[in-house]
Parts: sequence; C-alpha cells; structure tokens
Amino acid sequence: MTEQKAIVTDAPKGGVKYTTIDMPEPEHYDAKLSPVYIGICGTDRGEVAGALSFTYNPEGENFLVLGHEALLRVDDARDNGYIKKGDLVVPLVRRPGKCINCRIGRQDNCSIGDPDKHEAGITGLHGFMRDVIYDDIEYLVKVEDPELGRIAVLTEPLKNVMKAFEVFDVVSKRSIFFGDDSTLIGKRMVIIGSGSEAFLYSFAGVDRGFDVTMVNRHDETENKLKIMDEFGVKFANYLKDMPEKIDLLVDTSGDPTTTFKFLRKVNNNGVVILFGTNGKAPGYPVDGEDIDYIVERNITIAGSVDAAKIHYVQALQSLSNWNRRHPDAMKSIITYEAKPSETNIFFQKPHGEIKTVIKWQ
Amino acid sequence: MTEQKAIVTDAPKGGVKYTTIDMPEPEHYDAKLSPVYIGICGTDRGEVAGALSFTYNPEGENFLVLGHEALLRVDDARDNGYIKKGDLVVPLVRRPGKCINCRIGRQDNCSIGDPDKHEAGITGLHGFMRDVIYDDIEYLVKVEDPELGRIAVLTEPLKNVMKAFEVFDVVSKRSIFFGDDSTLIGKRMVIIGSGSEAFLYSFAGVDRGFDVTMVNRHDETENKLKIMDEFGVKFANYLKDMPEKIDLLVDTSGDPTTTFKFLRKVNNNGVVILFGTNGKAPGYPVDGEDIDYIVERNITIAGSVDAAKIHYVQALQSLSNWNRRHPDAMKSIITYEAKPSETNIFFQKPHGEIKTVIKWQ
Amino acid sequence: MTEQKAIVTDAPKGGVKYTTIDMPEPEHYDAKLSPVYIGICGTDRGEVAGALSFTYNPEGENFLVLGHEALLRVDDARDNGYIKKGDLVVPLVRRPGKCINCRIGRQDNCSIGDPDKHEAGITGLHGFMRDVIYDDIEYLVKVEDPELGRIAVLTEPLKNVMKAFEVFDVVSKRSIFFGDDSTLIGKRMVIIGSGSEAFLYSFAGVDRGFDVTMVNRHDETENKLKIMDEFGVKFANYLKDMPEKIDLLVDTSGDPTTTFKFLRKVNNNGVVILFGTNGKAPGYPVDGEDIDYIVERNITIAGSVDAAKIHYVQALQSLSNWNRRHPDAMKSIITYEAKPSETNIFFQKPHGEIKTVIKWQ
Amino acid sequence: MTEQKAIVTDAPKGGVKYTTIDMPEPEHYDAKLSPVYIGICGTDRGEVAGALSFTYNPEGENFLVLGHEALLRVDDARDNGYIKKGDLVVPLVRRPGKCINCRIGRQDNCSIGDPDKHEAGITGLHGFMRDVIYDDIEYLVKVEDPELGRIAVLTEPLKNVMKAFEVFDVVSKRSIFFGDDSTLIGKRMVIIGSGSEAFLYSFAGVDRGFDVTMVNRHDETENKLKIMDEFGVKFANYLKDMPEKIDLLVDTSGDPTTTFKFLRKVNNNGVVILFGTNGKAPGYPVDGEDIDYIVERNITIAGSVDAAKIHYVQALQSLSNWNRRHPDAMKSIITYEAKPSETNIFFQKPHGEIKTVIKWQ
Ligand SMILES: [Zn+2]
Ligand SMILES: [Zn+2]
Ligand SMILES: [Zn+2]
Ligand SMILES: [Zn+2]
Ligand SMILES: [Zn+2]
Ligand SMILES: [Zn+2]
Ligand SMILES: [Zn+2]
Ligand SMILES: [Zn+2]
Repeated sequence: MTEQKAIVTDAPKGGVKYTTIDMPEPEHYDAKLSPVYIGICGTDRGEVAGALSFTYNPEGENFLVLGHEALLRVDDARDNGYIKKGDLVVPLVRRPGKCINCRIGRQDNCSIGDPDKHEAGITGLHGFMRDVIYDDIEYLVKVEDPELGRIAVLTEPLKNVMKAFEVFDVVSKRSIFFGDDSTLIGKRMVIIGSGSEAFLYSFAGVDRGFDVTMVNRHDETENKLKIMDEFGVKFANYLKDMPEKIDLLVDTSGDPTTTFKFLRKVNNNGVVILFGTNGKAPGYPVDGEDIDYIVERNITIAGSVDAAKIHYVQALQSLSNWNRRHPDAMKSIITYEAKPSETNIFFQKPHGEIKTVIKWQ
Repeated sequence: MTEQKAIVTDAPKGGVKYTTIDMPEPEHYDAKLSPVYIGICGTDRGEVAGALSFTYNPEGENFLVLGHEALLRVDDARDNGYIKKGDLVVPLVRRPGKCINCRIGRQDNCSIGDPDKHEAGITGLHGFMRDVIYDDIEYLVKVEDPELGRIAVLTEPLKNVMKAFEVFDVVSKRSIFFGDDSTLIGKRMVIIGSGSEAFLYSFAGVDRGFDVTMVNRHDETENKLKIMDEFGVKFANYLKDMPEKIDLLVDTSGDPTTTFKFLRKVNNNGVVILFGTNGKAPGYPVDGEDIDYIVERNITIAGSVDAAKIHYVQALQSLSNWNRRHPDAMKSIITYEAKPSETNIFFQKPHGEIKTVIKWQ
Repeated sequence: MTEQKAIVTDAPKGGVKYTTIDMPEPEHYDAKLSPVYIGICGTDRGEVAGALSFTYNPEGENFLVLGHEALLRVDDARDNGYIKKGDLVVPLVRRPGKCINCRIGRQDNCSIGDPDKHEAGITGLHGFMRDVIYDDIEYLVKVEDPELGRIAVLTEPLKNVMKAFEVFDVVSKRSIFFGDDSTLIGKRMVIIGSGSEAFLYSFAGVDRGFDVTMVNRHDETENKLKIMDEFGVKFANYLKDMPEKIDLLVDTSGDPTTTFKFLRKVNNNGVVILFGTNGKAPGYPVDGEDIDYIVERNITIAGSVDAAKIHYVQALQSLSNWNRRHPDAMKSIITYEAKPSETNIFFQKPHGEIKTVIKWQ
Repeated sequence: MTEQKAIVTDAPKGGVKYTTIDMPEPEHYDAKLSPVYIGICGTDRGEVAGALSFTYNPEGENFLVLGHEALLRVDDARDNGYIKKGDLVVPLVRRPGKCINCRIGRQDNCSIGDPDKHEAGITGLHGFMRDVIYDDIEYLVKVEDPELGRIAVLTEPLKNVMKAFEVFDVVSKRSIFFGDDSTLIGKRMVIIGSGSEAFLYSFAGVDRGFDVTMVNRHDETENKLKIMDEFGVKFANYLKDMPEKIDLLVDTSGDPTTTFKFLRKVNNNGVVILFGTNGKAPGYPVDGEDIDYIVERNITIAGSVDAAKIHYVQALQSLSNWNRRHPDAMKSIITYEAKPSETNIFFQKPHGEIKTVIKWQ
C-alpha cells in the first residue's frame, strides 16, 4: 500500500491541496520516517501563490509535495551507528549535485545552481509534508536533546543563520573586526525585519556577543517584544529611531531600499549579510556616493543562502541551549500550530505570527 | 633656507599652482628626500577641480602640497639598516592613527577614518610635489631592482591592487573558488574600466592565473590593445560584446549602473571588488531581483581602499617581474612625462593617457 | 586602612603563607573587588614548591600574592556601562605589553614574552588571593548567567580551551578536515590526561561534534567516569586500550613520551594541540620515522598558551550551557572547597581531585 | 610497436636499469609525450638503494619506471584549449584517489594516503623516464615562458615549496606574524640543509620578504655561496655560527636532532615547516622543556608533503621571474646533466651537486 496523505502544489503554477497521493516504496532505503512537525515560511506561501518561478516539480511528475522545515520521527532504519527507530531527526533540504562544492557536502555553496542540486519541497524534489518519507541516513540530523521537542522544528530556518555566521567569520577576517579588548562587546548588529529568521539571527548574534537590535518600520507586538527582551535583544521602529554605527547588518527583508538606507550607517570594516529575498521589491537608486561609501570604508556585502549539514548540527545545539536558558521565549516563537487540513495558513498568516507549524501526528 | 618649489592646491576649494613655498626643516628627521617622478591620477585632478569635499589642508595651513604617487631619492638619512643616500624609495600615502587597525600598520583598514589617519597630498598632510621632503624611515619602501627606474612610480597605484587581492584571498575562502584541478585556469576575471588602475589589476590577475578581460563602453586605442596583448589580457567593448560567467569582477569606474549590469553576470560564489569611486555617478535602481541574485549565488561584494606597506613591497616586486618579462609594455604604460610647470595636466588628460607622470629632477 | 589578608609566595623561591599584607589603595581605580572563589592548579602548586623558575615577584617587592583562577565580586565601581556593585566578574590573568599582539588585546599571543606582559599571581603581578583588589574594567569579564554561581570559577581554566580551539580552527583550514558530509560526526578527538583541563577540553570537544576520548595510563574514579558519561565522553586506560585513528589530539600532560606515542596514531591532516607543560618530563627519542610520519601526513602540531578576553567570554557562555544541560556533572567537577587558611592544599591534592577551589567569602 | 627505452627499478627491492620495456599504447589518451629533462633526487636514489619500503610497482607488474621530476614535450594531443604539439609541460606526480581532499584536486592533502592516491615513479604508477608517455591533459601543466628552457625541470621540486608556503600562510594567521609595519622586513627565515630543495625554499623566502639564511654543519662550496649571494640569501655553518631569533624555520634534512636544536631558537608565534624526511635519522630526546618551549611561545610545527596543480603553476611563474632576474644563478642550480645510460648517478652524487638532471632527448 503506497497511498498516503500529503500537502501538494504544482510548481511553479501554485495552488495547494491536502490530498491522497500514490508514492511507491523505493526498492532500497536507509530509513523510513514520518513528519512530527513541519514549519512553513514565505517560500511555501510563495510556491502556493505561484510567485516563485524558479520552483519545479520532480522530473516526470505533475505535482510537488510541499514542506522543507521538517522534524521527522524514524519509524524504521537499517542497521547503522547513528539513528534508530523512535529518534527525532531533521532532514536536509538541499541535496548535492556533482560540482566541486557539492562533492564535499557543501551543496549550500553549489558552484552551478540548478539543476546541479535539488531542494526538497522547492526544486525538483518532494518535500516532507506526506505521511511516509524514505531517506538516506547521511541526509538526516539527529535531535540529541530530549527536552527540545517541538522547538526542533526551528532547526531548518536556524541552519541558515549558522551558515551566515560562518560567512561572516570568513569575510570579517580581512581586517580586525573585534574591539580593542579582543571581544565583540559594544559591537552593534542590526537585523532588518522581525519575522522568525530575524529572531533566530538576533539570538545567534547575542550568543556571539553582539549588541543586537532588530528593526522594522512599525512598532512590534507585545509577544515579540517580550521574547526579544528575554534574550537581551533591542527593537527599533526605524521610522522613528534609526540605529547608527552598525558593525554587522543582516537583511531579512530582501528590500534594497531599506538595506541601502541602513548600509549608509555601517561602520568601517563593517559586514552586511544579504539573506532575505523579495523578487518583487522595487528598485532603489544606488548612486556613486553609495559605492564610494562602501569602498572608502572597506565594507563587505555577502549574499548567503542555505546551509550545510554542519549548520543543522550547530542549529540543534543552539536551540537546546536557548531552550534551557529561555524556555518561555522559545515556546512563544511558535505562534500557531495547524492541522494538515488547515491549508488556509498558506494564504493567510495567523495573527501575530512568528512561526506557524503544522502538527502532523 | 627653507624656501622651495612645490605644486599646491587649497583643499577642498581646489586650484593648482607651481609656486615657491616656505616649509621649515623639522628639528628631527630620519631621512631627507626629493622627488624623482610623481604620477597623477583622478584624485589629484579632483582636488584641483575642487570636486573632492573630503580633502583638507594640514591643520593651521592654507594650502596643501599635491602628489601621492611618488618615487623619491634619498638625499640624506640617519644611520639605519634599510636605506642610504642615493636609494630610490616610495613613500606611504596613508599615515596611521590610533585605532586597532592603524596600530598594527594597517591604516588602510582604519576602523575610524578621518581624522584618525591622514593621507599625504589628500587629507591633512602635505603631498610629495615639493623639492624637499623629510620623512621617517618606517614610511619609506626601498626600490630594490636597479633596472626598474621610472616604472617604480607605479608602485603607489599598484599597491591598491595588491591589497584588493588580499581581500579577495580572504573573502573567497567562504567556499571553494578554485577549479576542479585546484587552479584558477579557466576562471574569468573582468575589470570594468581601462585606465591605469584597470591595467594594473589585469596584470595582477594574469599573474594569479585568471583568464582576464578588461571592458569599457568603447573600443580601445592601439597602444592599449598592444599592452594588453603582451600580457595576455583580452578587451571587450561591452556595448557590443558582454562577457558572461564572471568569477571575479573588479570595478574601477565607480559607476553603479555598469557595476550592477556586470554583477548579474557573476557566477555562483563569485567575488566583486568595488575599487573605483565617482561620487557623481547617477543612481541605478537596484531591485529585489538584484538582491535575490546576490543571495542565491552566495556572491560577495567587497569595497577595498588603500593598502598597507606590505602591498607596496609586493607591488615593487610585481613591477620588477613584469618589467623583465614585458619591458616594452611596461614602458608604454607611462604615456606622458610632464615638467612640474605643466600644471595644465591637472585639467586636461594628455591624449591616449594611461599614466601621466611629472619628472621632478 | 590598607592591611588585608592574602595568600602569598616568594617567587621563584616558593613557600606559601596565609598572612596579613599591607597594600595601599591606588590613587585612581575603576573597580574595587573581592574574591568569592579562587581555583588552584598545578601552576600554583609549582610556585609554592619553588619549581617554576620563570615566576617572579612584582618589581620592587619581596612577595607575590597567589591566585589566577578567580571569581570576584564587584564591591564598588566608577560609573560605566558594563559592571556594577554586586556583579560577579572574572579577571584577566595576563596583562598586555606593547608588542603588536598585545596592542590588539591578544597578549596571549605576545610576540615577545617576558617582560612584555605580566600574569597575575605568576609573573610580576599580584594574584587575586587577597581581600581587596583594584582593577580596570577592561580587564574584567562579567558573569551574565545568575544560575552559574561557583561554576564560574572554571572560566579561567576553560578560557585556555577556547583559545586552543581557535588555534585548531585556524590551522585545520590547511586542508579539508571535516567529513564527507561537512560535519565532524565520526571525527575522533583524544585528550591525554584526565585532570580538570582535560575535562574542559572534552566538553568543548563534544560541543564541537567530535567523538571524544580522554586517556590516561590508569583506570579512572567512578566520579570522573560518571561525569564523562553524562557528557558523552569516553575514557580509555591506554595501557590496555590504545585509541587509533585520531583526528585531533590534545595533550594536557606535557610528557613527550606519551604525546609522541599518540602522535603516531594521528590521521592524515590531523592536528595536535600541545597544551600541558611539565618541564621535568624526561626525553623521548623522536627519530627520523617520527618526523617522516608528520611530514607524509600533513600533520600540524600547535603549542597553545593562555587566551584572550574573548575566550573568557566564550568560556562563561559554555559553562552556562553545560550547567543547564548537565548540572550534576558540572557540580561534581569542583571536588573540594577549602578555606583560605588551608594552605596544605598547595602541597597535597585532596583525594579524587578534579578542581580544588578556595571559598574566600 | 610498443617497445621503448626506460629507466626502471623493482620497488621496493631496488636496483636500476636503463633497458627496453614493452608498454602498450592505451586505447584512449589525451596526449602523447616524451621526456626532455628529468631531475633526480634523494627519492630516486632511495628507491634504487631499496631503502624506501613504502614504494611499490604498479599493480600486476614486476618493475617500476623511475622519474617524477619531469619536463616533457607534447608530441601529440587531442583537440583541447590548453596544450598543443610542441609545448613543454610538467606532469603531476601524485594522482587523486576518492577521498574528500583528492576529490577537489588536493591529492597532496589526501585524507587516507596509500592506496587512495598514487605517485608516478614512486608508488604504484610508472614514472616518466621512458621514451613515450600517455597522459590526461588535466594532469599536465604548461610551461608558458619560452625562455625558461631546462630550468623548468625544477618545477616539480619547487611545487613542494609553494605548497609549504600555502601551509605557512594558513597556520601563521593564528596570531599577527607580520612586523609592526605590516611587512616581513626583518623577519628571519632559516632553512636547515643546502640541497636543491633548500635553495628553492630560500629563493621563495626572499620573494616573500624574509631575511633568509641557509644553514648546514659544514662550510659551503663557492658555487653555492655565489648563487645564494645573487639572491640575497645568507649562509651559516651552524657549528660555528648558530642563527637565533627565527620566525620561520624550514627543515629539509629530516633529522630531528638538528630540527629540535633550531626549534629552541624560534621566536614566539614562530612557524616550523617539516619537509625533509630521513627515516634512518637517529632519535633526539625531546623532553619536557622542549614541549614547554613550544607551548609557551605558541609555536606551530607543520608537516608538509607534495603539492597541488596550482603549486606547479606558481612554481613555473616563480622560476620564470627568478630566471629573468638571476639567469646565471638559476643556470648554476643544475650542476650536472647526465645521459639516460649514466645510471651511476643514482648511486653517486656528482661532485658539488645541487640538482642533477637527465637529458633525455
Ligand atoms: Zn522555510
Ligand atoms: Zn553543485
Ligand atoms: Zn592616485
Ligand atoms: Zn585608524
Ligand atoms: Zn591555573
Ligand atoms: Zn606582547
Ligand atoms: Zn624528487
Ligand atoms: Zn585521497
């Protein structure tokens, strides 16, 4: 019996259905898994809206199972030294191609892009919103902390943050970025946006020792401010209060107008991480003075996408640490838990959303 | 007697005069020097035109001696293990302040900017277009190759290139930038512009193993094409023939419109060095798709300004190597040799200019 | 009144006294502090035994206050944005000189060594085993986690581990050290020794993702095995069971015979951190085959001493994480709490010692 | 007809014959080549003496063609964008296996060692001392400088030096290695040994800006001293005159007694490159004080073997630069040119040898 329930779209056209699909069991597999929680984000919503032209169904198929932010349970596994039945695991989204970076487990840095690599639930590979999943053990990352529970569903979005900090670590070596006392005490990190990725960036920034401020062009909800407060993160409505003297700027909005406005507040030797994407964001007239600003201050701007398995491992460890230090704040990050049948969450953000997840089982 | 001839401006108002100034001999100094050749560039012309608002006279003075691209002769030096009377030296332009980067000889990466550091002939410090110069030995870099001669005047512009490649070396480590065989064979470097800095970037790129193309929006002179050809550098008029699949993009124009047009041709994991500045360049509407392009491809954009003493040393060594391999091409880089009194070169580029220099002695 | 109680030695002759000393209040100071807990280690014992010839009293004085592993309370502080009365802080042991590394807050990498830098309680600077301490705020690191308590006294020994991993991070970049899947899963770290530093290395190794084994030439106590077990660290009595295929080897013994025996078990591209010192350890005949082994396998051996302020910050954060995940194990690391008057602990290790501390208040 | 002349041994037993072998033409090949010059070194002599137990014949064969330091001429090549008939090329010695480092063209950093990779003329792969060679283009490095001629035979030994400096570049980043002025002026590099590899290290060290001294335990020949002098390299008979304050120490002897004697003269943050091997070198009793010396000074010791294709490219460029600056010195490096039949050169060093080569055509 290979019929199962799944949430599917038809990429890149869009739409969403919680429906029964027929997916044969593969002849050989390492592990059989089922979803526990699956988060959704702007990518899922973009796919459903038919707004992401780069997405596509698996070869030869006319639908794409959605879901890339997954927490799975191992239902069966061939003998191996890593996972066993009952373990919780997080599956890798991007699967390697054959280029030099894919070849070393760094498909996040794929030298070619499509079609060298695939992304589950996004480009040419089924996602995890289905009753039964077969996968190779090398693509699964074990949840080690038994107390983590549902919070582990944040691993996938957080792994992007871990990779971005790896990029920061590399590029910031071009000069002395640290303060006179060798620390980051007093160094300012500003994150544009206040969605779930912005929160995860802010927590990781605090861990690194940055003085962290999240910004948006409106005031924030009490729930969000409370979470920030617990982590020692500040918030600024930048229409009223524009942060200055920024050492590390992270954009989660994908909006050039905001990014370049903040870029002009970045210090000498500052680093800008471009992370958010919004293909429809209107143009901002970057002029000679903007370029001059970047050149004269030795500023580095780094696009960062996806992450490698090591970043999933790091993400799980950070989640565990954060959950033990700030359990209430971490619980409050997941603002809504939907049933698989509630497909309206793909069209409409639940009120006060930070992260919406689907409880599968 | 402290009167001497000098070429001066009044920063930031501008103007230029070859005139007699009175500059007292300092009580203590390491070395007494005089100019042999001094190159001029867009910065000198910008100062004379009064177009560079960031320039200023030395404190308490009403004029600024011009000239930062200098080749000097040692006329006298206190006992030291490095230079002696008769040696040719290149003086550092930027002098350190007190910040953490300045403190380790890396004022090119000054964490503060003005007024922490000063630049001879540009910001708050007299330049080298004067008969007599007193300086500390630590700010002088010796010309070791006796065959180099006048070519050594290119050290100062070339040192910027050496630093930019240091930046490239650091930031490109964020993924595997090299080809499958560990080399740069087949990796494409494109340089926007075809002025003297563009030439120096192209030679350094060839040395590194890149497949190098210089581009401009017009065809180039025979002299320039011949020099490129000798070094194995290609040229493209990008209005007719747009290079694609760029791994390293260097902009020497400061014009965002051109830079962002080429940026959309940069490969995954590609690096963009922003080097040229043109405060008056009009805006280019960078939109969401441009940001998306940078993010999804893990592209790094790095502003790079000035250079450290080690880059002057490296520049001299490269000039020596290039001069021995391509003596005719190197000679042809210096397209005009002016007398100090020919101050019209500050207003008008001599025909076919790559580098114009003033022969002082 | 400037009289106070202190534990002093006479460096390098040795001896120990809990006695009254006279130490005038400095005219200017940032903070007035007093000890809460102070750990002791082989260095303190070596000083008391007169076995450390490199130690010396502060200039012009005939005694040296002991104590470098301190946890202090702020009793008074000038207005500042970092610490206030009542805060717990950890003071830096090594204070900077004037060399290029000291100048950027990296006195742990002092380019000169004595007398460019000083170490509190060891070389030329009084330690922290005294009732009243005056210090500059830049040399104090705040304990942020209120639940940490006494555990924070491990910050000083742990900071060495954090720096050693920084060194590992740098030197291991010479090739791909990570596994095929980009992680450290399955990479083996072996730590020679089972004292307090070995424990701290092992916990940090587990955090990084290593498969960690501590080794000694005897079986271990139940308390130690239980702590290891809680952290997922293995133990081997290497006389019975010699670990093989080591990727990262850390020596805390200072004994070349053991180190070189294990070095011959290190994998290609492996890294060896030399951390322990024992000036009296007998010679081991390193021969041509040993050198050949290192060369052919591209092995890196790195001595690592002391740490910078950033490593104190990292240490505090790791202690906080470990304490929340493994509170019992962390408590068990401190095996004996002495009164200041119990100076016999400097001569004789309390039974089953991992870390002995003095409770000052 | 597949018969040809070759110089063969029987690994690891040893012996040498210039003889006729039968080697069939492969069905498919990229390029057909023949030797022009082939250098010999201690490895060839060790093989012939039967002293290298790690060497072995190609699978299923009872002999091994010698020769790894080759300069070849292209006699025929399939259509490609890199080499053509008549070009001179240098073939890679080590061929990749399947490990993560081999997979990215860095078989010099093979994670496994034998039998993951093979080395032509040494381990499991025929060398280049034979009339006809078939090879893939990806393993050939083109000689670009037409003036280089015979000097290009030094590419293979020099590529090791280039890789060792890459290792130095990485490991020396753990602290500030550069001087206060950002340069290497005044930084001392000492090379143990005065054979051909020592010379190549010394030239590369001078290029980097080091103050370079070669050392041996005897005085040197006039020819050698003259070559050193031309490059600005010093020499010391260390039995009479022991260099002190070493920043970079390179050992080409493989003798631990000498290496550890010099190691005790290395400065804080110093780097030691272990390059030479001599399996029969007697033991030196490394004791606790030696370990202490390494630890307290943050010294790094790095074994370095072989090199990647990029280092062959760099080697050729350096040879070209050196040959144009110091043509006489470079000529004098090759001290004897043998005919293929002169197999006695494998047993006996020609008088005053720096590098002995076989002229094949
Ligand atoms: Zn997502
Ligand atoms: Zn790929
Ligand atoms: Zn200029
Ligand atoms: Zn500065
Ligand atoms: Zn201690
Ligand atoms: Zn120092
Ligand atoms: Zn050889
Ligand atoms: Zn391999």
